[in-house]
Amino acid sequence: MPRGGVTHRGEQMALIAGLVHDRSTDPRIGELLGNVEGTPLLSDGESVEAVNVRELRRDFDRETRLPRRLVEEMARVSALSSQAWSEARDHDDFKSFAPFLEQTFALAREKADAIGYAGVRYDALLDDYEPAMTTDRLSELFAHLRTELVPLVESLRNQPRSDSNSPEREFPVDRQRAFSEEVAAKLGFDRECGRFDLGPHPFCSMIGTGDVRIAARYQPASFTNGFLGVLHETGHALYEQGLDAAHYGTPMGDAVSLGIHESQSRLWENYVGRSRGFWLHFYPQLQKAFEEQLRDVPLDAFRATMNVVTPGLIRVEADEVTYNLHVVIRFELERALLDGDLRADDLPSAWAERYRNYLGIAPENDRVGCLQDIHWSEGLIGYFPTYTLGNVYSAQLFDAAERAIGPLEDAFAAGEFRTLREWLGENIHRHGKRYVAADLVEKVTGNPPNPSALIASLSQRYGG
Amino acid sequence: MPRGGVTHRGEQMALIAGLVHDRSTDPRIGELLGNVEGTPLLSDGESVEAVNVRELRRDFDRETRLPRRLVEEMARVSALSSQAWSEARDHDDFKSFAPFLEQTFALAREKADAIGYAGVRYDALLDDYEPAMTTDRLSELFAHLRTELVPLVESLRNQPRSDSNSPEREFPVDRQRAFSEEVAAKLGFDRECGRFDLGPHPFCSMIGTGDVRIAARYQPASFTNGFLGVLHETGHALYEQGLDAAHYGTPMGDAVSLGIHESQSRLWENYVGRSRGFWLHFYPQLQKAFEEQLRDVPLDAFRATMNVVTPGLIRVEADEVTYNLHVVIRFELERALLDGDLRADDLPSAWAERYRNYLGIAPENDRVGCLQDIHWSEGLIGYFPTYTLGNVYSAQLFDAAERAIGPLEDAFAAGEFRTLREWLGENIHRHGKRYVAADLVEKVTGNPPNPSALIASLSQRYGG
Repeated sequence: MPRGGVTHRGEQMALIAGLVHDRSTDPRIGELLGNVEGTPLLSDGESVEAVNVRELRRDFDRETRLPRRLVEEMARVSALSSQAWSEARDHDDFKSFAPFLEQTFALAREKADAIGYAGVRYDALLDDYEPAMTTDRLSELFAHLRTELVPLVESLRNQPRSDSNSPEREFPVDRQRAFSEEVAAKLGFDRECGRFDLGPHPFCSMIGTGDVRIAARYQPASFTNGFLGVLHETGHALYEQGLDAAHYGTPMGDAVSLGIHESQSRLWENYVGRSRGFWLHFYPQLQKAFEEQLRDVPLDAFRATMNVVTPGLIRVEADEVTYNLHVVIRFELERALLDGDLRADDLPSAWAERYRNYLGIAPENDRVGCLQDIHWSEGLIGYFPTYTLGNVYSAQLFDAAERAIGPLEDAFAAGEFRTLREWLGENIHRHGKRYVAADLVEKVTGNPPNPSALIASLSQRYGG
Repeated sequence: MPRGGVTHRGEQMALIAGLVHDRSTDPRIGELLGNVEGTPLLSDGESVEAVNVRELRRDFDRETRLPRRLVEEMARVSALSSQAWSEARDHDDFKSFAPFLEQTFALAREKADAIGYAGVRYDALLDDYEPAMTTDRLSELFAHLRTELVPLVESLRNQPRSDSNSPEREFPVDRQRAFSEEVAAKLGFDRECGRFDLGPHPFCSMIGTGDVRIAARYQPASFTNGFLGVLHETGHALYEQGLDAAHYGTPMGDAVSLGIHESQSRLWENYVGRSRGFWLHFYPQLQKAFEEQLRDVPLDAFRATMNVVTPGLIRVEADEVTYNLHVVIRFELERALLDGDLRADDLPSAWAERYRNYLGIAPENDRVGCLQDIHWSEGLIGYFPTYTLGNVYSAQLFDAAERAIGPLEDAFAAGEFRTLREWLGENIHRHGKRYVAADLVEKVTGNPPNPSALIASLSQRYGG
């Protein structure tokens, strides 16, 4: 956005947020909900009616506790702060961004206090992205993960690297695109009800029933990044396309949580797309598409290039193992910022310290340190943990799928992905928001959310 | 848009149109306007208050005459029809689109009848895009133009063509982009309050105060198309950037009409960007940017390549002379479709007949014939004439500018564009909607809208 447009953008965002707030807190909604609550219509708590009323009540109550002034101010500051973040990052000038960060966390504190919480303040924010998850539970889960992953990463630090994605081998972008989109379609992405585009950041966007879009980014120097990005977004898209269109616009037709959403993307990316079976099926086709680049690269050598673990500074470029430590760091720091235990000015040093402790490296500047993510500048606090929850859930769900269906490698090797997709559709997608995330995971896997499956899978696949 | 998303898009568009209609016809608006109308506050008809009240009343009355059902239906059909058009064009299948076209014109008839009109039905639609212009006046103006241009085009049919844009010479897109954006900035485009991007269609978009964006499209095979496209959009952008930001969001801070808007784009494209003075200043710089391509091309030979007149089938690719005949054809045909004198099924043959009569060529299929424009499929009827009104006004305004300032070629040759820009700012931009288009043109040029200046300029520059 041009600098001159920022103020106006802030005013527009504030106005829209205010109008949405007015609509969603209309007392008439409370009355209508009150009319059905406690009636026999809702006696089955898992019925469509009961779920929709429960979730609408939840949203109504949360929103009603926020004053319109605060909603507008958060929207306005989000616009100004995102722009300040963008400029600060471009010039590696954290000082210019610190006041915005301070203000954003002050507003988040105000928001959390207005909403209220049973345990700690952070609960109220987390609840926006991962309803019913608590800070205590998350802290325990993350501590467990950290304890296991830090030594695993340390042990992998000096593993030999083989990298057929080295700059010598260029993968023409148009062929990457054709291959990736064809694979996504074979996994079940419905192109009649969606489309692929190119974009500066990979994402998946549900425009509405029958219109789910994937933006991909391909780089000639790395096939793996672009391709796994498409599988990731395809996982999100299959969830959206698997929701019950008859319930569109109501909680029963909506995704459970960001964590569950991320579990779908990670499952297809990591448990399907990195598997040997998958490449037994697709590698010959890939070799045909990139004959010069891959003719002399055997299947397992190729797979080894996708599965390199290297501690790095940038979250979005992180491998499957170290990624979770990037998230743990953000979780710990945003809690401290929210509670006032850490001042914005002191973020860079706190950031460097944690990177040193958990990943054994530290950023040489804030661009590749605490200025790398847009989230906080937009007011997204309590959001980061859902990335790792997605990894945790995905491991549990894939285990459960294999227990239910049988080992899947052979199916993948035969190009058969429908069984897994349908199992996910049946057990996750079609339920919409019927169950909160933790209950859904427990119902489907037999266990509450916990990182054991993820740790086991990572250790088995990457450990010595 | 994926085919599966069309229905939902239609419902969304209908809902939004309905909500906007509700807001803009709120009886409270009528009451508030009534409170000030007839009071001394508005006694000076050119005052900010009087202009704003006049224009708000106009919009309120027009909108209030439309039933919500019709507004919703037009939005819904527009979404479905655009999609049908896109598929029909891709498959050169006019028959599949004809029912949508029939329905669109039926709704337009209903709309015009609901709004009402003094003269003919088309007046009511034209008034959306060029307020206060009438069909009678337009018919006369277009008849005059057609009478002069058809023989001019005929006389130029066999002119020798010199074309340094021939496929042998490729103009790398990144250098085209750098050069074009630098020129736009020199003409006065403020990059602090705007930005350039690439897009599939050139356009200029006012996001809000301080944020005016230009999308450009460059092709290696033709420098002229991309560059003149940027000048065109720059003309639109200078108008938006020249509006009084203090009046943003009210009629006094808004453009007069589509015709006046187009006059600004055409003036910079045709009267500045095609002039000899302009290229005396910029050609050395262009030759430096494209040394291999232009080293051996003298200034006047280069200019000759920009100013070739060739009757073609595609409006958006048309030269400065034939362009207006493309518009006249659409004006005549949309009037006939609206009045029911022409049935949608008969459009292809009527189209071909007029192209033969006015331009001496006829389309070999509907893709390059009556399926080429998106406008009618979106319900934009009464819009096409504003393109040619823009050409008409631009000639009148440029004449007036030179009468007021003196001949401008020398200024352009010296790289001086500020005087012209400021003259336009003073006489056009800063007034917002103070005057309707015809009055503004008459006030600034001394004459009501008429095509004499345009015809004189085209004849002088292109005539034998």
